[in-house]
Amino acid sequence: MTEPILWTCARSRGLRATWAAEEAGVDIDLRILPFPPRYRAPEFLEENPLGTVPLLIDGPGDKGARMTESCAIAHYLATREGYTDLAIAPGERDYAEYCDYTYHADATITFPQTVFMRFAIFEKDKGLEEAGHAYAKWFHKRLVKVEQRLEGREYLCADRFTVADICVGYALILAQSVGLDEGVPDSLKAYRERLTARPAYRRAFEREEEQRKALEANG
Amino acid sequence: MTEPILWTCARSRGLRATWAAEEAGVDIDLRILPFPPRYRAPEFLEENPLGTVPLLIDGPGDKGARMTESCAIAHYLATREGYTDLAIAPGERDYAEYCDYTYHADATITFPQTVFMRFAIFEKDKGLEEAGHAYAKWFHKRLVKVEQRLEGREYLCADRFTVADICVGYALILAQSVGLDEGVPDSLKAYRERLTARPAYRRAFEREEEQRKALEANG
Repeated sequence: MTEPILWTCARSRGLRATWAAEEAGVDIDLRILPFPPRYRAPEFLEENPLGTVPLLIDGPGDKGARMTESCAIAHYLATREGYTDLAIAPGERDYAEYCDYTYHADATITFPQTVFMRFAIFEKDKGLEEAGHAYAKWFHKRLVKVEQRLEGREYLCADRFTVADICVGYALILAQSVGLDEGVPDSLKAYRERLTARPAYRRAFEREEEQRKALEANG
Repeated sequence: MTEPILWTCARSRGLRATWAAEEAGVDIDLRILPFPPRYRAPEFLEENPLGTVPLLIDGPGDKGARMTESCAIAHYLATREGYTDLAIAPGERDYAEYCDYTYHADATITFPQTVFMRFAIFEKDKGLEEAGHAYAKWFHKRLVKVEQRLEGREYLCADRFTVADICVGYALILAQSVGLDEGVPDSLKAYRERLTARPAYRRAFEREEEQRKALEANG
């Protein structure tokens, strides 16, 4: 089997994919792009017309599968040669919750942060900051589901670390890095600490950073 | 096995779940709420502290699984007793794409529409319309992936109708109902026509409408 190629930007939600690859022991060809790739690496649009990261290419040339959703890629890396302990299979305890949290992570608790980032950070000069702050509030309110789920639990599903933790964990990592941590409950900060202390997370993070620094050094 | 309970609002993204249940032949106890449930059915907050629809409860009482993500529910209904033809299993052709599109549907092509709806429709008087229109544009640009994928294909994955079509199809159905259809390519409108002509879609739609009308008649 060819090694999957992962195009991403360091610390973007593609970190879910880099992290899942380390947890699953899948060798990937990691290719870090400068941010934002749409402007700083326009040739990437030939690979992915959306211009978004991450992009996973699995398989040779035109026949390779192309995936652009970080949560889907993380789940896929944990199941592409059959279910591993990082995923939960139909029939297994907490299968429903596993499905739910892997989708919840982006569809409900990452997207509002991206709206906040756009209007309150990147395009702050456009006078739409209030729209960004409305979604910051929205984000904090939606954390109640994960908060309640983790009462008395170390991980989201089946008493073990799974891709659901990678997906939701990244949303909490992002909150810290974009200045939304004040409204994040302490229990979720402790959960994030547990997740980011994992050796596979550290390896994934460092692998991305190494390439990012090399890119910066080369201008 | 107990019949799963599906709380939702007619024509909301919960339609993915109602539709998937019809396609999969899973009997569900459908319970339509008035929109928005947060204000018009506040007792629902006891069932789902997020106040969002849909909510699927599968299993008795406190032991029942509770799911709130429409794409996750649709995939779950097609796999809860093992993989059916509506889903694609690890190892099968187009497994990667199946995963990708089921996540893509909400995380990339439904959420921008909800931002548009908020600022350009529901809260139009708040002076943030421009933020809504920025995301309408964002939505139309992101359709390129689905558009390219459907060149020469009737369905997204494995030459058959799957939950990936339900997930992405609903995003296109929403575009039509919220006035974003002008920027939707004709090929995707034709794809939507094929999907909404399916008997299972018609049954799901009518089932929701029947309860919605009964609710309205009762004030």
